[in-house]
Amino acid sequence: MQSCDTLLFAEIIVTQDESRSIIYNGGVAISEGNIMCIDTAAAVRSQYTSENVMELGNSLLMPGLINSHTHAAMTLLRGAADDLPLMDWLNNHIFPVEQNLTAEKVELGALLACAEMTRYGTTSFCDMYLIEDATYKAVDQSGLRVLGGEGLFMFPSPAYPDFDAGIKLVRELEAKWNKHPRIRQAVMPHAVYTTTPEILTTCREVAEELDIPIHIHLAETPAETKACVESFGKRPVEYAHSLGLLSGRTTVAHAVDVTDDEISLLAETGTNVAHNPESNMKLASGMAPVEKMLAKGVNVTLGTDGAASNNALNMFTEMASCAFLHKVQLLDPTAASAQTVLDMATCNGARTMGQSDIGSLAVGNQADIIAIDLTQPNLLPMHNPVSQLVYSTTGAEVHMSMVAGEVLYRDGKYLKIDYPALIDAAKDVAKWVQKKIQKRS
Amino acid sequence: MQSCDTLLFAEIIVTQDESRSIIYNGGVAISEGNIMCIDTAAAVRSQYTSENVMELGNSLLMPGLINSHTHAAMTLLRGAADDLPLMDWLNNHIFPVEQNLTAEKVELGALLACAEMTRYGTTSFCDMYLIEDATYKAVDQSGLRVLGGEGLFMFPSPAYPDFDAGIKLVRELEAKWNKHPRIRQAVMPHAVYTTTPEILTTCREVAEELDIPIHIHLAETPAETKACVESFGKRPVEYAHSLGLLSGRTTVAHAVDVTDDEISLLAETGTNVAHNPESNMKLASGMAPVEKMLAKGVNVTLGTDGAASNNALNMFTEMASCAFLHKVQLLDPTAASAQTVLDMATCNGARTMGQSDIGSLAVGNQADIIAIDLTQPNLLPMHNPVSQLVYSTTGAEVHMSMVAGEVLYRDGKYLKIDYPALIDAAKDVAKWVQKKIQKRS
Repeated sequence: MQSCDTLLFAEIIVTQDESRSIIYNGGVAISEGNIMCIDTAAAVRSQYTSENVMELGNSLLMPGLINSHTHAAMTLLRGAADDLPLMDWLNNHIFPVEQNLTAEKVELGALLACAEMTRYGTTSFCDMYLIEDATYKAVDQSGLRVLGGEGLFMFPSPAYPDFDAGIKLVRELEAKWNKHPRIRQAVMPHAVYTTTPEILTTCREVAEELDIPIHIHLAETPAETKACVESFGKRPVEYAHSLGLLSGRTTVAHAVDVTDDEISLLAETGTNVAHNPESNMKLASGMAPVEKMLAKGVNVTLGTDGAASNNALNMFTEMASCAFLHKVQLLDPTAASAQTVLDMATCNGARTMGQSDIGSLAVGNQADIIAIDLTQPNLLPMHNPVSQLVYSTTGAEVHMSMVAGEVLYRDGKYLKIDYPALIDAAKDVAKWVQKKIQKRS
Repeated sequence: MQSCDTLLFAEIIVTQDESRSIIYNGGVAISEGNIMCIDTAAAVRSQYTSENVMELGNSLLMPGLINSHTHAAMTLLRGAADDLPLMDWLNNHIFPVEQNLTAEKVELGALLACAEMTRYGTTSFCDMYLIEDATYKAVDQSGLRVLGGEGLFMFPSPAYPDFDAGIKLVRELEAKWNKHPRIRQAVMPHAVYTTTPEILTTCREVAEELDIPIHIHLAETPAETKACVESFGKRPVEYAHSLGLLSGRTTVAHAVDVTDDEISLLAETGTNVAHNPESNMKLASGMAPVEKMLAKGVNVTLGTDGAASNNALNMFTEMASCAFLHKVQLLDPTAASAQTVLDMATCNGARTMGQSDIGSLAVGNQADIIAIDLTQPNLLPMHNPVSQLVYSTTGAEVHMSMVAGEVLYRDGKYLKIDYPALIDAAKDVAKWVQKKIQKRS
């Protein structure tokens, strides 16, 4: 018998491993944050002992979901401005708040986002925002995993006066955080319409020099395409490619307005696409051609975008929306199957994060695991676990979330966050947000 | 001071009354199942006392949601067959189970549906199914409210050998249940493609004679339209109108494939439309022209359809899907606003149910009330209650559900259902369902 740090037992394990195995009456042995053994409960019990045994009974274990595109601290703006034309939304509601952000407020918004993700089964996320250092502090505290980046623009941000200072900040952040086990950096130019060719080229060079990923909003709307053609003579995907931006290092968020040729280009260059169905629907951006991208071999992942355009950071409801959208888009009920969508939210997302040791439960992988309560009425009866996860689960059935073997949330209690204090702080910041919006509109 | 049965106090009340008032720090006084007073907490406290005071603190009270089209007992088939072409889904998975249904199994499936609806904030629903008497027994036990009907076909059902026996059964059910305070009847011909003109005419006559509503699937898919034109020389809405079926008495479910003229016809006749966005998306039926219908004055309500094509009976996630779908359908972020969608799920639904005393909280109305926990991270900060309800709430934040002043669910406990026994029964029936499906496919 071998001893280990933690043993988990549950009725179903959806591993998302290479053969997509589902283990009934399963167990997981964890040591030093990694999965030592994953097998039937009987097999695990016969090999491992632990002082910390979690008998989770009528539960389903699965890899924590990966939110591949969000702006965590935008929780501050959740529900502050909805059902508005895009330019009114941005200019009169979102920007007046963002221009006045402080590190303290970003950290609060990001901590609230981490609480929400932990609660609803997301254990890793890709994040682009302002004053990203503050988001890293929230991630550090909450126990989640992030691939983050300071949003880089051609104009000043609350974090830097100009792009040169912005790219200097990226280097400083990389130096400050690159030893952190759960926080990794990317270079994140905001979009083609908020940067110049020189800025994008510098971003690519810095990403190559530091050997870190690139993450950029691209081809989100037909309006973006039109402006890009007018400014740079090319559509966004072509333009990004002309600057060497498309590669396996890069994730483009949205890719809604893309032609068949551009999809081929994304596939050939190995560029990852972060699909955000709820945000694309709510902002009326359009429907990304996800089935075409998948058919051509693009690594399509799933993201929520920020809470101001969603309005939740819930990867379970996002999975359902993704499957629903592509079925009705193509008038084909076989499109975007439950397994395809679950892959987008787990193993495909791991590739975008640049981590092969998350997104699936297998020996040697990180123990980023969530447990779902199968006694909830919306999960009964249990004919097909993958269908149930994609179509029926709200995310609130998550009763345990763990990253690298450490429990972050269990049975209504946060173990790393002072949640009552966070509720009070969220109430206070609401007043500040509303004042900034009212001043402008 | 006046005494009453129950007093509720909470931080926010979204009344959905005629002026859509929102009361901060509000209270409700209830007696004999009706709302006696609804006002600020201070005003209610100064007028009423009760031995049963529920101080719900940081909660939001609102009318229980109204699911205007479902097949409750289809919970039995939740997740049993997904991502399939429509005819394979129906012929090889749904029908082989439904043809073998018994009253016992329908009651079990309906009870599970009632548990799910209670848990996720739905207090009233419109239901069409086989052996509907068994569904009424489940509704009677669970404490919910239903407008139900036996599904009527031109072929035999498990409840009757032919249509004549079917319509006789409708009369018997009406006689048996019409004194029940929460169970009301409609005549429910299944669809134009499963009936004859004679059957539809008889249905209309019986509904008029008994003075009860009519509920029918109509114009769900282009395939239905094509078949209807081939069989009867008219598109479904025109055909139904030619038989006198369209009126304020009638609710048509789906109305996806309708022309502008047909929308005018629905508006002019006062016909109600039950919109089922998630089912329409998942089955790839299409996108109903909901904004056009609303603009012409059609009373559009919201439903989940059955759990085999959704796969949940969750009116909160359905509200979000509804708003998302119509924004992206029209490429207009102002379409299907949060308030519009909340109306569909509450007061518009009440009109379809034929009950003006539900769907809003006002003096004299039924006390069908749910309470939502505002301390959940996805509901913070609170800028706009209606946005939060439509876009951010999963339904799991419901911690109290009440119908006619009686608490059905509170803080994880069902007060009218033996829930542990229901879990066990759902496990057993799963095996039976799977055997029936395997035998056929």
